Amino acid sequence: MVAVHDPTAAQTAPTKAAEASGACCAPSAEIDEARAEQVAKVFKALGDPTRVRLLAMIAESPSGEMCMCDLTGPVGLSQPTVSHHMKLLVEAGLATREQRGRWAYFQAVTDPLTEATKALTR
Amino acid sequence: MVAVHDPTAAQTAPTKAAEASGACCAPSAEIDEARAEQVAKVFKALGDPTRVRLLAMIAESPSGEMCMCDLTGPVGLSQPTVSHHMKLLVEAGLATREQRGRWAYFQAVTDPLTEATKALTR
Repeated sequence: MVAVHDPTAAQTAPTKAAEASGACCAPSAEIDEARAEQVAKVFKALGDPTRVRLLAMIAESPSGEMCMCDLTGPVGLSQPTVSHHMKLLVEAGLATREQRGRWAYFQAVTDPLTEATKALTR
Repeated sequence: MVAVHDPTAAQTAPTKAAEASGACCAPSAEIDEARAEQVAKVFKALGDPTRVRLLAMIAESPSGEMCMCDLTGPVGLSQPTVSHHMKLLVEAGLATREQRGRWAYFQAVTDPLTEATKALTR
C-alpha cells in the first residue's frame, strides 16, 4: 500500500500500475472504479429492509420462484410498492421477472451478491 | 405456489397462515423485520462505490489496518469526505477506528457482511 499525496496522481496511478505489471504488490486490493460501481449497485439494492425480505422469501421459496400475488402479504405493502422494490432488485441483477397472464413471477439470482461480497472478503 | 387472484386476499392470507400454523411451508424464508433492518443497514453502508473501495483497501491491507492519511489519495477525495464515509462504515459495524496521535487508523470487520450475505444465500 503506497500513500500517494498528489490527488491527481492517485486517480490514475493504481490502474496504470495494475495494467503495466499485472502483478502489483497487492493486486487483490485493487477494486477499480468501474468494479466498485457494480458492487455498490448490488449492495445499494439491498440497502432496504423490504427488499431484503422480498429477496429472502424468493430465494428460499421451495419452487425457486414467487408470484407477485404471494409477495405483498408477508411484507404488508401494496402491489405497486412491491413492484417498485422488485424493479430495483431486477435492475441490480438480483432477480428475474417473468410475466404469466395477469401476474409477474420472480426468481432470485444471488450470484451478484455472492460475487460482490467476495470482492470485499476474499 | 398458489396464484391468488383477489388482490385483497393476497395481501393478508399468507401472514395469517404463517401466524396460525407456526410451521409454514418454508419457515427458513422468514427474515423478521428486525433482522432485515440489520442486514439492510450493512448493505446500505456498502451501497456507495467510494465506501466499497475504502473497505476493500483496508480489508486487504497487509498490516490489516490503514491510516486515514493513506486512504484519501487512492480515492481522490478530501479528508473530511473520507472521514464521513468511514464514519458510516464504522456505524454499520464494518470497520473499527483507533485514534493514534494526529491520525485515525481503521481496521476492516467483514463478518457483518458475510453474515448479511448468508441471510440471503443460505
